[in-house]
Amino acid sequence: MRELLEAVADGSLSPAEAEAELKGYVTGDAGRFDAARQQRRGIPEGIFAAGKSAEQVVALVETALETTGRALVTRVTDRQVAALESALDDSFPNATVDRRSSTVHVRTPAFEPPSLDATIGIATGGTVDGPVADEAELVCEDAGATVDRVDDVGVAALDRILDQLDRLRDADVLVVCAGREGALPTVVAGLVDTPVIGVPVSSGYGFGSDGEAALAGMLQSCTVLSVVNVDAGFVAGSQAVLIARAIDDARD
Amino acid sequence: MRELLEAVADGSLSPAEAEAELKGYVTGDAGRFDAARQQRRGIPEGIFAAGKSAEQVVALVETALETTGRALVTRVTDRQVAALESALDDSFPNATVDRRSSTVHVRTPAFEPPSLDATIGIATGGTVDGPVADEAELVCEDAGATVDRVDDVGVAALDRILDQLDRLRDADVLVVCAGREGALPTVVAGLVDTPVIGVPVSSGYGFGSDGEAALAGMLQSCTVLSVVNVDAGFVAGSQAVLIARAIDDARD
Amino acid sequence: MRELLEAVADGSLSPAEAEAELKGYVTGDAGRFDAARQQRRGIPEGIFAAGKSAEQVVALVETALETTGRALVTRVTDRQVAALESALDDSFPNATVDRRSSTVHVRTPAFEPPSLDATIGIATGGTVDGPVADEAELVCEDAGATVDRVDDVGVAALDRILDQLDRLRDADVLVVCAGREGALPTVVAGLVDTPVIGVPVSSGYGFGSDGEAALAGMLQSCTVLSVVNVDAGFVAGSQAVLIARAIDDARD
Amino acid sequence: MRELLEAVADGSLSPAEAEAELKGYVTGDAGRFDAARQQRRGIPEGIFAAGKSAEQVVALVETALETTGRALVTRVTDRQVAALESALDDSFPNATVDRRSSTVHVRTPAFEPPSLDATIGIATGGTVDGPVADEAELVCEDAGATVDRVDDVGVAALDRILDQLDRLRDADVLVVCAGREGALPTVVAGLVDTPVIGVPVSSGYGFGSDGEAALAGMLQSCTVLSVVNVDAGFVAGSQAVLIARAIDDARD
Amino acid sequence: MRELLEAVADGSLSPAEAEAELKGYVTGDAGRFDAARQQRRGIPEGIFAAGKSAEQVVALVETALETTGRALVTRVTDRQVAALESALDDSFPNATVDRRSSTVHVRTPAFEPPSLDATIGIATGGTVDGPVADEAELVCEDAGATVDRVDDVGVAALDRILDQLDRLRDADVLVVCAGREGALPTVVAGLVDTPVIGVPVSSGYGFGSDGEAALAGMLQSCTVLSVVNVDAGFVAGSQAVLIARAIDDARD
Amino acid sequence: MRELLEAVADGSLSPAEAEAELKGYVTGDAGRFDAARQQRRGIPEGIFAAGKSAEQVVALVETALETTGRALVTRVTDRQVAALESALDDSFPNATVDRRSSTVHVRTPAFEPPSLDATIGIATGGTVDGPVADEAELVCEDAGATVDRVDDVGVAALDRILDQLDRLRDADVLVVCAGREGALPTVVAGLVDTPVIGVPVSSGYGFGSDGEAALAGMLQSCTVLSVVNVDAGFVAGSQAVLIARAIDDARD
Amino acid sequence: MRELLEAVADGSLSPAEAEAELKGYVTGDAGRFDAARQQRRGIPEGIFAAGKSAEQVVALVETALETTGRALVTRVTDRQVAALESALDDSFPNATVDRRSSTVHVRTPAFEPPSLDATIGIATGGTVDGPVADEAELVCEDAGATVDRVDDVGVAALDRILDQLDRLRDADVLVVCAGREGALPTVVAGLVDTPVIGVPVSSGYGFGSDGEAALAGMLQSCTVLSVVNVDAGFVAGSQAVLIARAIDDARD
Amino acid sequence: MRELLEAVADGSLSPAEAEAELKGYVTGDAGRFDAARQQRRGIPEGIFAAGKSAEQVVALVETALETTGRALVTRVTDRQVAALESALDDSFPNATVDRRSSTVHVRTPAFEPPSLDATIGIATGGTVDGPVADEAELVCEDAGATVDRVDDVGVAALDRILDQLDRLRDADVLVVCAGREGALPTVVAGLVDTPVIGVPVSSGYGFGSDGEAALAGMLQSCTVLSVVNVDAGFVAGSQAVLIARAIDDARD
Repeated sequence: MRELLEAVADGSLSPAEAEAELKGYVTGDAGRFDAARQQRRGIPEGIFAAGKSAEQVVALVETALETTGRALVTRVTDRQVAALESALDDSFPNATVDRRSSTVHVRTPAFEPPSLDATIGIATGGTVDGPVADEAELVCEDAGATVDRVDDVGVAALDRILDQLDRLRDADVLVVCAGREGALPTVVAGLVDTPVIGVPVSSGYGFGSDGEAALAGMLQSCTVLSVVNVDAGFVAGSQAVLIARAIDDARD
Repeated sequence: MRELLEAVADGSLSPAEAEAELKGYVTGDAGRFDAARQQRRGIPEGIFAAGKSAEQVVALVETALETTGRALVTRVTDRQVAALESALDDSFPNATVDRRSSTVHVRTPAFEPPSLDATIGIATGGTVDGPVADEAELVCEDAGATVDRVDDVGVAALDRILDQLDRLRDADVLVVCAGREGALPTVVAGLVDTPVIGVPVSSGYGFGSDGEAALAGMLQSCTVLSVVNVDAGFVAGSQAVLIARAIDDARD
Repeated sequence: MRELLEAVADGSLSPAEAEAELKGYVTGDAGRFDAARQQRRGIPEGIFAAGKSAEQVVALVETALETTGRALVTRVTDRQVAALESALDDSFPNATVDRRSSTVHVRTPAFEPPSLDATIGIATGGTVDGPVADEAELVCEDAGATVDRVDDVGVAALDRILDQLDRLRDADVLVVCAGREGALPTVVAGLVDTPVIGVPVSSGYGFGSDGEAALAGMLQSCTVLSVVNVDAGFVAGSQAVLIARAIDDARD
Repeated sequence: MRELLEAVADGSLSPAEAEAELKGYVTGDAGRFDAARQQRRGIPEGIFAAGKSAEQVVALVETALETTGRALVTRVTDRQVAALESALDDSFPNATVDRRSSTVHVRTPAFEPPSLDATIGIATGGTVDGPVADEAELVCEDAGATVDRVDDVGVAALDRILDQLDRLRDADVLVVCAGREGALPTVVAGLVDTPVIGVPVSSGYGFGSDGEAALAGMLQSCTVLSVVNVDAGFVAGSQAVLIARAIDDARD
Repeated sequence: MRELLEAVADGSLSPAEAEAELKGYVTGDAGRFDAARQQRRGIPEGIFAAGKSAEQVVALVETALETTGRALVTRVTDRQVAALESALDDSFPNATVDRRSSTVHVRTPAFEPPSLDATIGIATGGTVDGPVADEAELVCEDAGATVDRVDDVGVAALDRILDQLDRLRDADVLVVCAGREGALPTVVAGLVDTPVIGVPVSSGYGFGSDGEAALAGMLQSCTVLSVVNVDAGFVAGSQAVLIARAIDDARD
Repeated sequence: MRELLEAVADGSLSPAEAEAELKGYVTGDAGRFDAARQQRRGIPEGIFAAGKSAEQVVALVETALETTGRALVTRVTDRQVAALESALDDSFPNATVDRRSSTVHVRTPAFEPPSLDATIGIATGGTVDGPVADEAELVCEDAGATVDRVDDVGVAALDRILDQLDRLRDADVLVVCAGREGALPTVVAGLVDTPVIGVPVSSGYGFGSDGEAALAGMLQSCTVLSVVNVDAGFVAGSQAVLIARAIDDARD
Repeated sequence: MRELLEAVADGSLSPAEAEAELKGYVTGDAGRFDAARQQRRGIPEGIFAAGKSAEQVVALVETALETTGRALVTRVTDRQVAALESALDDSFPNATVDRRSSTVHVRTPAFEPPSLDATIGIATGGTVDGPVADEAELVCEDAGATVDRVDDVGVAALDRILDQLDRLRDADVLVVCAGREGALPTVVAGLVDTPVIGVPVSSGYGFGSDGEAALAGMLQSCTVLSVVNVDAGFVAGSQAVLIARAIDDARD
Repeated sequence: MRELLEAVADGSLSPAEAEAELKGYVTGDAGRFDAARQQRRGIPEGIFAAGKSAEQVVALVETALETTGRALVTRVTDRQVAALESALDDSFPNATVDRRSSTVHVRTPAFEPPSLDATIGIATGGTVDGPVADEAELVCEDAGATVDRVDDVGVAALDRILDQLDRLRDADVLVVCAGREGALPTVVAGLVDTPVIGVPVSSGYGFGSDGEAALAGMLQSCTVLSVVNVDAGFVAGSQAVLIARAIDDARD
């Protein structure tokens, strides 16, 4: 405790970092940020941008950067990203912004992903599943995992899956994203002996659209799967990281 | 008209057959039987036994036998079948009763299935899909089609499907029954160039059970399918017969 | 194989066509295009434009034109069509663009629909069903089928249906589109002996709107129908083509 | 008031009748019976037997007989009817019990249906709709209306409807019961100029079963209908009586 | 027939009127208009504007005016009304346009509502129910009925209803519109002896919003009601007209 | 602590009572019983009997009696009650069993309800709501509240409610149970200035049955209500007790 | 009465106030305002702005100010607030406008909140629950209650809740707002002995979003809660006021 | 291959074992058994007994014993278990039958669970979750994992969870079963850094019952979880085994 306060006193630790260290969460203008989640759960708290103002997103990102060195923002709009980039020019001019679809990863030079000796495979059925897979991918990379991304292996043409079977089998854990009827995770899980996490994607139209058919199909799968909510790439990626870390720990 | 009445007069035609011929339907104790459906649509009216008393089922079967020479009864219970067999001992002692799961086909010696030069493939994912496939199978046989039944080819183990690919490709039209996530018709339709009719089966438990996930998945299929209602083996078989007959007509 | 590579070498075959020939699918900027679906299934892969950027639609159309000579795009917006026409001016200046409602068919002069000796009837209940029927119609024409379109025969005035009965009976297979209560396919199927594919349309308001009442009604039909998802004109048309081709093959 | 009390004193009015006259409802062992509904609304309160014990049904019937001279009980079981008949042997030995399917009408000799100069047509699509139509029929007869019952005119065979068109057109108001896709009220309403009340029936299986497709279809009808809840024959019959009485009043 | 054609020849009848007379419907640019519905059903075909282009609405209105002398358009937008008014300046400069909320009634000087000796009461729970009641009101006025409109009598303050009880009781038939929990038709129907038609209104938020709670509540009503779909003021008004006309006929 | 253990040692406290005192819960054969809920929340833990074996119910009741002097069991069957009475003959021969519908209250002579100076009104719409109201009533009595039960005041006949208005207004808090359309809590809450807790009851049939219409209607209420789940009489009664106790505390 | 009219005559009472006093409601341009609700129920009628024009909102606010001295408007848009502020500059230049998120409280200098000796706790799980809590907060303040607001205590980090336990326990009644899985009211209610009102918030995505999971979870809570509809902060706040007032009354 | 056939020839391998070895699945009277699943996926195929006849269950168990040495049967009834025990007396007299709730594990003396160096924690909220946890537990034990079962830690009393925190944190992977509102997996996952698999349990009544609220709540969880279908203890256990095995492999 004393040490911590002295570090604040001599400036080697910001007050926010100290608060995060002591209480686990930091209270900023846009609400509390759970800075201790990284310690407690081994995965960072994501910033869910949908329904938040650009100002709120910026404030939360800055708090995250200040206390953990990076920020992971999902469901961003172009407007939010523009506001963010402009704000960071002032507050964190050295930060790197990596955007894929509607997910953004920001990090300061000081942040270094932990070394994690495990491979997470991420598969998609088609183009429309891309943004959800991107969300998962950035979480996994942030955690230091090796990611092997296998795109466009929808079940309408089995050859595309069978062509990639070796890569799917080599991963330590698999995140499989699919919309429409959502059969891909079932077909993949029937071919590998690693844990598969299914992610329903909100594509399609008519009855069962918006990912509902895919979710129901994955929950009803005649093989063994666990599932996250529709479009929840962030959650699936985080769960994969927790598994990958357990494996990594065991490898040590 | 004159001829018809004379046939009734000399006993070569029963009054019921004559009514059927003239008006298209016969009114019996248990309601009207659409005896002309065979002529009008090329497929017989099925007798849906669920929710009917044994007496009503018997009466409808007897009307069907009298006017079309056979009867197709779906969703029967053991009690209804016992009552039926006992009644037929009296009324149609020469009739043959063919029961598969909860479907029953009765025919008099006079009935002969039409000759139909076409093969209908019927595939199932697992044991639980059997009774639904049986319903379809009996309709197809009644219509004179060649039936090729391919059981237990669920998507949890792709090898089982690929092993049977030639048979699936050789059929003129395919009826594919599957419960749980209902992915089988999609996977099959991606491998053949014939029309596929998907039949969701009411298996599974929890969210999406009772065939709802399977129905939604087939309607959302990323390939080309048409679908019937959950457990509607009779409808799928009848639709397959209509297609098979069109092919047969063209072959002549 | 050698032949193929020599054709590429001497320029009579583009690399894309060669890839399509060899692997079945082509990988472009906007994802994989299943160029072999035509061979495997007898129907082309459609390009579903909803939710795609204009650039992605253009890229997929160009890949389709390059490998199969034509492209079928559904659910287009005016903006996407404008971008497409402008792009084609450069890349395929001789291509023809046929737009009906929200469906577009593009073809190069080299493309010739196959000859298909079968008639597909397409019926609608009212004006609002038009765009869905257009989707089906363009698929059928692309496949070389004769299309007989019978519009505005809703069940609220039976005379309109009975007036067109001969045309409905003359088709080899029928696609029947209806919104609101969706009773038209049932009424039509009771009057013909050909296979009927029902297409629920997302019209109406209040309970059962967005095609849900129509879908449920078609699945519950007291006659024999198979069904596709709400607004799935493309799927219904493709299924009709598969049936029509089977008939055409038998006619030869 | 004085008169009423004197009538109770000299026994020409039972206490229950007097209570009904004064307060509008009678409190018996099985709860309150709304004896004044007849006066207030022109239709009797029905006794809904489902979920009630045989004793409760008997008690309510006896209260109804005592105060209004008859009772209308819907959704009865065989056990309830047996208990009722046995109890009435003692309490109302001259009462007549008219049972049709699961509806029972009991009346004392003193009860005389009012004279009502109007015809209520009741149509059904098939056998399964019978019990719901019976419920409506007994309400209408109780009110003194002429009932014209037209059974088995399902839309799968339009001829059956067109054959009965004159009868359907001659009614002053129509109650049309239909299960499965529930298209019959729509088709009938397109052919007549009288008010049509649609009653969805809980038949069918799979998606849209239990009357849900029929209800949705009737609410979405492209013609003019009003609707009651699934299987609500009693409500539809009562609403038809209210309309018939308004017509009868105007005829006087 | 001859007469009709001569009337066309000498210009006293337009070709459209003649087609309407002969075939019952007219085919214009925007689809068929059921001009004979007025004769067949006693109520005009309404023009449902939602989802139609301004051009389609204008074309349908002009066809309606030409063949029946007036047009009733529901769910209009400001843009559609502007286009309509501008077009009518040219085609029907003497027509009168009566707009209430999102419903528009257009009539030529030649049109005269039929004389109808019956009163239709229309009640609403609150301001939000107004546009739905307006739809019903214009249909009733078009048919010549006397309309008694009773607004703002929601069940949260019973006094407001009891204050208006005499007016509610004096109507021959009642249309009662209510959103949220939709209890108003039940409360009103418990107080009158005339037929009540409930109209659920799509107000509210959260669970049961968009009229679903109101619809369910009216279908479950513990009194006697018939119901139309959510916001279906046009249907309720038309059904009320059918009942009012039957009463009017009986009065003659 | 020492005291407690000495009390166990000298037998004035059972081990179960001591465990309850120390840990708050007791672990018996049928799971943990939250004996401390009474202290922590001011209301006892109820024993939900549905889906439990008679043996499990008996064991939980005995644990409850041992630690808190009484037990409240909801959703019992006759079989469970018989087993319970037989078991209590041995284990707690002096206990009193008070059963109302499917709720049972057992207490030892030692148990005395706390004195609670507040009145809880409990109203029902009809006979079918009785068992749910009984559940609430027993909870309130157990807590020592005065209960004023007002039955059979359904909205189909407003007079019945207005007759009881004084009693409804005199309660400190109201629990109002209603099935079908569930309008009673709304109508009552519009007439009183005390908190009203609505309890939807699982009556009715067809769309919105099983309490769903009632639940939706209460949540959508145009007045101020809070709500519990369908048939949750125990929860509503407990919440009323918490409010009544707060009032009672303030009265002291 | 005489007094009242004299007060109008001498101008000390406006006609609107007099109407409100006499009839309980005032009829303005935008419908009736239930001015007597304050007297009858102890809580003011809120003005629900969603779906109303800015003009209607202004008119209702002015009527409310005129008759009760203040107005509470929920679900406002920026446009409505701007119109309101501009209008009030003219009509009520001394009024104070207090806006929090989408709720607005307007009061004239003459209005003074009643003195209410009770504390209402309002807790939220996260930032997204803020606007719903603001709605509740303004109702409570308007009624004169002391409000203790405890933000950001979501269940993902239990420490945050346990840190605030004393404040939660000190309130007389608690309003707990939570979206996503909505577990917060359950966890809080397990820790306090005061009544808890749960408010589901429409956050989240995929299955169970829009507050549906939260609503279901609160209704299924294994502890004692009552619930209001999704986002119904106004209703929850009003119910809390009714409870607080009952406590306050008892304290006197 | 030669070796295998020789082993069959000399009787050291049964034909079924050989078929399993060669084709991966065995075809018996009751359908195909996926004997190779153990090799392919590392988990055995479970036998889902619901809806199967006792004879089918016996046949499948015997096939499983013959090819893999043990069988895991879920959702058994007493009748099925009796039939199974009686049949095994003959066919596998040395087999051990371990039944917990509705799950049965049968093994021959030859079967030995693999050694697996990992701990799987299984937690439940209450008694009703027991049978689902039993299903998971038997799968984990079959795979050789160490199981730590933590019962009755429902969120209504947080102390019970916090008391067991060390055990929950010590597991390598957690399966958390909860019904009603299903908040337990969320609360647990907020406290540990291992992967948590949530299993919704079909308890509760009213809205959100049958596990639907729990499923929705877990999918909406504000922390990181993956989920299986309602009551899917077998699937959750199997997924936990896949993760545990990956950890075990890494530990070697």
